[in-house]
Amino acid sequence: MHFDLVVHNGTVLTVNPAFDTIEDGIVCIRDGKIENLFPHQDDSPLPEAREFLDAKGGIIMPGLVNTHTHLPMTLFRGLADDLPLDVWLNEHIFPAEGKYINPENVRLGAELGRAEMLLAGTTTVCDGYFLEDEVAAAVLASGMRAILGQGVIDFPAPGVPDPSRNVEAAVAFVKKWHDVSPLISPSVFCHSPYTCSEETLKKAKRAASSLDVLFQIHVAETQNESTQIPSQNRESPFAYLNRIGLLDQNTLLVHAVWADDHDVELIAGSGAKISHNPESNMKLASGIAPVSLFLDSDITVGLGTDGCASNNNLDLFQELDTVAKLHKVSTLNPTVMDARTVLQMGTIDGARAIGLQKVTGSLEPGKQADLIILDTRKPHLVPLYNPVSQIVYAASGADVKDVIVSGKIIVHNREVLSLDVENIIEEVASLAKVIGAD
Amino acid sequence: MHFDLVVHNGTVLTVNPAFDTIEDGIVCIRDGKIENLFPHQDDSPLPEAREFLDAKGGIIMPGLVNTHTHLPMTLFRGLADDLPLDVWLNEHIFPAEGKYINPENVRLGAELGRAEMLLAGTTTVCDGYFLEDEVAAAVLASGMRAILGQGVIDFPAPGVPDPSRNVEAAVAFVKKWHDVSPLISPSVFCHSPYTCSEETLKKAKRAASSLDVLFQIHVAETQNESTQIPSQNRESPFAYLNRIGLLDQNTLLVHAVWADDHDVELIAGSGAKISHNPESNMKLASGIAPVSLFLDSDITVGLGTDGCASNNNLDLFQELDTVAKLHKVSTLNPTVMDARTVLQMGTIDGARAIGLQKVTGSLEPGKQADLIILDTRKPHLVPLYNPVSQIVYAASGADVKDVIVSGKIIVHNREVLSLDVENIIEEVASLAKVIGAD
Repeated sequence: MHFDLVVHNGTVLTVNPAFDTIEDGIVCIRDGKIENLFPHQDDSPLPEAREFLDAKGGIIMPGLVNTHTHLPMTLFRGLADDLPLDVWLNEHIFPAEGKYINPENVRLGAELGRAEMLLAGTTTVCDGYFLEDEVAAAVLASGMRAILGQGVIDFPAPGVPDPSRNVEAAVAFVKKWHDVSPLISPSVFCHSPYTCSEETLKKAKRAASSLDVLFQIHVAETQNESTQIPSQNRESPFAYLNRIGLLDQNTLLVHAVWADDHDVELIAGSGAKISHNPESNMKLASGIAPVSLFLDSDITVGLGTDGCASNNNLDLFQELDTVAKLHKVSTLNPTVMDARTVLQMGTIDGARAIGLQKVTGSLEPGKQADLIILDTRKPHLVPLYNPVSQIVYAASGADVKDVIVSGKIIVHNREVLSLDVENIIEEVASLAKVIGAD
Repeated sequence: MHFDLVVHNGTVLTVNPAFDTIEDGIVCIRDGKIENLFPHQDDSPLPEAREFLDAKGGIIMPGLVNTHTHLPMTLFRGLADDLPLDVWLNEHIFPAEGKYINPENVRLGAELGRAEMLLAGTTTVCDGYFLEDEVAAAVLASGMRAILGQGVIDFPAPGVPDPSRNVEAAVAFVKKWHDVSPLISPSVFCHSPYTCSEETLKKAKRAASSLDVLFQIHVAETQNESTQIPSQNRESPFAYLNRIGLLDQNTLLVHAVWADDHDVELIAGSGAKISHNPESNMKLASGIAPVSLFLDSDITVGLGTDGCASNNNLDLFQELDTVAKLHKVSTLNPTVMDARTVLQMGTIDGARAIGLQKVTGSLEPGKQADLIILDTRKPHLVPLYNPVSQIVYAASGADVKDVIVSGKIIVHNREVLSLDVENIIEEVASLAKVIGAD
């Protein structure tokens, strides 16, 4: 009985429902799935396998799940910062997108983003952008797992010059990518309640429901969004979305910063999930989402980095640290968002938020083998009393040594085996000279 | 005319008063000092030198200045998290300190801390702890620059069992280390206004003033500190310290979280400096210091990580990112704490906060050659439109490739030349087995 791959000699954090930790654990992988996990008994030989990966005393854990990105925006990392939101968007980001977002550049930006994510231990990403076909092709080539949504917005957009065909384009994307690879799940991504009409929102959600795919939407990112939507009786964006039938268990509400108690109740009742993007919300000064309230109401919350123009990196390890600290200080309560809760948010709860909880997000027999190994022999990762604390409060993406997706080693000793990273860096640097000269 | 060392082939961020950037810059170093900086003219040969360091297209910038640490507390990294402050301190940290803080362990913890700091690009540290002699010996051996304060507290402390001799011990430390090395400046570190009597505070400050050294003190870290001090008419901790003569330009106020407008006015009028520790204040849920108000009042603010038990790392690059984002979101204003302000806070303003602004914190002729090189050929650091934005919002300590202090290369290609890091890690891991078993 040979396994395809055996990962050994590390502390295994399963993030299973019992949150089991296995000291000196062994993870046995066959046909892309975890078949078994158990502690290494003294002197017993390793199980037979075609390939072995030695964690060298490090931490073996589920790959992180990034529930919200716009991968091609890596191209605009650091192009404009520290500006009022309208100036940043209208004078910098929208013009740059208008001029430089074409199929070739979308592909390149996504290639850069997937390399950055893999090197920082993210194995699953949920993305939404325009020309998402190109993102899908780039992600597919990398071997990552992804939920990818073609953007729907009531303005002319890259690849969809006629906004009346925006939902049609999203549906075509879903149909095209539905069966291409078990790693890629297509989705519908409506930009927001203030950039899509009620008709567009309903049509897009109906399409997503009939195709049985995730429906992603930005909502309540800024305080004044309620004044920008066709609200009735000053209803909140959540009440509006609920009234028009958009809130259900296959809806991912991105940001959800300005949610009051009534909104929390609505969200909880609907089964909708939340993608919390703390660093982006901080950098753009959008506000602090009431994550403790969401958790108290049993709402599923995953973490996202958002695009690189508002973060400015895709390192979810740093996001784990930030989310724990941000909510402690904003509630003046050091016990909220403990390390275990935060690690679940970055793994299994992220998977749950995007509907992949049966596939990834924890290390359990029968699930896909999406796992990463952290090198803990570094000054900032010793002593090691508690691996969960270390992951949340001390580690960064640069501590990821190896990355496995669906049983395949994609990053080994910090080298991305599936990609020519040097070449991607060169190409992006060339393009940036043109963009930066504007 | 030979230089000792020439650093070349990188973008030089001087952080001088004009905030000059030199593309393809050359930094010429002799006798530990920067003698000259200039752009590399096409095809011109490099200046003659004994040694060259190629930045390989990366960023050459001042080493970071960490204005507040307790280095030996690296030993307690991750020992206890997510707890109410009193439980964390009284049931975990104080007992661990009581049992394990001895000269040997203080030395070991400081050895670990200096390795971690150097690998994350910190060249100057301001520390305060007990048995600070051992910290000084460890830091001296590493070749870092440091301000080191022996702790003063009105309780029996490691190395000072009789609290009535606490100021005497601090004075003895200052005298012992006054002339040992140009890299080490001794200081006096009073723990806080609620753990030292008025008499102790005055005596310690008088001693610091007569020795002409920095006086460090924790103040207003938590909201209820004003109830814990011998205040009159509900005066604030700052008003109290001001009334008893402790606020002047050689005083470093650490934390200063709970400062109102009147406190800000008092601090500004006194010339006292502030060490802002955002991640520690967040993790312990202490609160958010009014840093924008401090800056508006021209108060000098440096950054600190605080000890590893409340952070849990010593990576100032992550602190740059956090401080920018925290104050944007807490003021709901994305224009505050722009990247330039933040980078100054982590370098020259940090140096100013601890009285070393003529020595370090910027790359200018005549100043000590304390500089670091960032490797920017990494997916998360491209494209590179703006090196300052990249440093603050995208980089982490792991991007530091080389570190130079006083003209000497201490870290090269991420190897700490002055230290046996593997051995330190081994020793800490052994000790942690004992501490963790408690």
